[in-house]
Amino acid sequence: MSELDIIQRIRARAKRGNSTIRLGIGDDCALLRPDAKFDLVFTTDLTIENRHFTRRTYKASEVGHLALARSLSDLAAMGSEPVFCLVALAVPGELAGRWLNDFYKGLLHLADKHKITLAGGDLSKADTVIADVMCCGRVPRGRALLRSGAKPGDGIFVTGRLGKPKRLPEPRLSEGIALRAFASAAMDLSDGLSLDLHRLCLESGVAAELDSSKIPIARGSTLEKALHYGEDYELLFTASAVALEGTCIGVIRKGKPGQVHLDGRILKPKGWDHFGG
Amino acid sequence: MSELDIIQRIRARAKRGNSTIRLGIGDDCALLRPDAKFDLVFTTDLTIENRHFTRRTYKASEVGHLALARSLSDLAAMGSEPVFCLVALAVPGELAGRWLNDFYKGLLHLADKHKITLAGGDLSKADTVIADVMCCGRVPRGRALLRSGAKPGDGIFVTGRLGKPKRLPEPRLSEGIALRAFASAAMDLSDGLSLDLHRLCLESGVAAELDSSKIPIARGSTLEKALHYGEDYELLFTASAVALEGTCIGVIRKGKPGQVHLDGRILKPKGWDHFGG
Repeated sequence: MSELDIIQRIRARAKRGNSTIRLGIGDDCALLRPDAKFDLVFTTDLTIENRHFTRRTYKASEVGHLALARSLSDLAAMGSEPVFCLVALAVPGELAGRWLNDFYKGLLHLADKHKITLAGGDLSKADTVIADVMCCGRVPRGRALLRSGAKPGDGIFVTGRLGKPKRLPEPRLSEGIALRAFASAAMDLSDGLSLDLHRLCLESGVAAELDSSKIPIARGSTLEKALHYGEDYELLFTASAVALEGTCIGVIRKGKPGQVHLDGRILKPKGWDHFGG
Repeated sequence: MSELDIIQRIRARAKRGNSTIRLGIGDDCALLRPDAKFDLVFTTDLTIENRHFTRRTYKASEVGHLALARSLSDLAAMGSEPVFCLVALAVPGELAGRWLNDFYKGLLHLADKHKITLAGGDLSKADTVIADVMCCGRVPRGRALLRSGAKPGDGIFVTGRLGKPKRLPEPRLSEGIALRAFASAAMDLSDGLSLDLHRLCLESGVAAELDSSKIPIARGSTLEKALHYGEDYELLFTASAVALEGTCIGVIRKGKPGQVHLDGRILKPKGWDHFGG
């Protein structure tokens, strides 16, 4: 099967979920006619074999799901609604048939669920599977959730339960949109609570106080993992009022920007730092 | 050096070239406030070690240049002006220092030249270097150059000279913008003239007739290479009038969609098809 055949097949399956995409797969670029009532948000994430998954333990369709879900989780963190995605994929030659097909099946299944259009991409060969998914979302003008809005006195909240990486993470898109009404800051938990909360506090110029007894720990996990494991794909957010979504796990306070305390003691960020540190 | 340190350093160097980007590196997504006078175009390209370059023969700064140039060339093909890019990069741990620094130096040097803002990305570890660059450009509403506009009787043109892959390709952005005034269709030459012209004709539902004596061959190259080598990063376009840019190499005609003839004989597309075929 030639590259043109493969692209034609993907094109036939990629439904146009959103009318703002004027031109998708088949040209040099995807084309979007923007609506000035919305801000657009963009994120890109690499999913790499033997780093984020192994082919022995993940089915091709699960890799497709995971690759898209990781990017969609960033759209959720900004409180945005999905618009379109671009998928750059490199695979070993022997995977160009069924594996590739199943990868797109898993990816497009999740795309349909969240009404995001696959609008283009890039396909090439490599020794291992490498997928980059770029997602674009939209949010009413000026309403995007940022990391920088947390204020002393705000409660700290998380959705779901932490400490157990999910094979097929479900991006918290509807929760993210709901958060726009009351959250002061938000981000997604991809690198572990201790590191991600540190980052949110750094961007907001504040410190944080966590209460270990309130952290919702996934069944079979531990506090240590809930604090420092990555790949939760839950939302971390702050709000001045009581939040209907999520669990309150602490409070934002004045202090050294980025410093996180657990039960009154300094908590060193230990999450998933890709280059040690 | 931790990932946060690396990101802070990149952030300090990535100038905000374009005021439409409201929020760049440091949040979950880059944020763009669109202008309804423009359509937006998007492209993504993977650049992979041992596939598109080797570390033995390419300096880190050259890899950074190449990775951005390949995406910018797609923006040129649509006749668009660069707006922002996202860079997803994975490198082996031992390259996290100087190599990474030099990669961004090369990339940002080219970004500054074409006034494109580095607005975000992703950084992780892998066994070999993998870079994905997503570029966004803008074009006055309804004015993007597509592959699908070629009409029988149009001349076929290329910029520059073909058949010699460039180590540091210079994306034809100003030429692409100039083409908006008169071109009927355009694309960039990344996979070789025979395959890329086949694709343009397929999208336009037309055939093509090339004149081998008119094809501009790079010094030290051959007609065979000019027809079938990739990585030219020149523009291929069609126009009904005489074009000021580029060299006329043939004419669009009615016929089997996608069929290309050279000096009256069928030319089989043989360019860079990533999966044989």
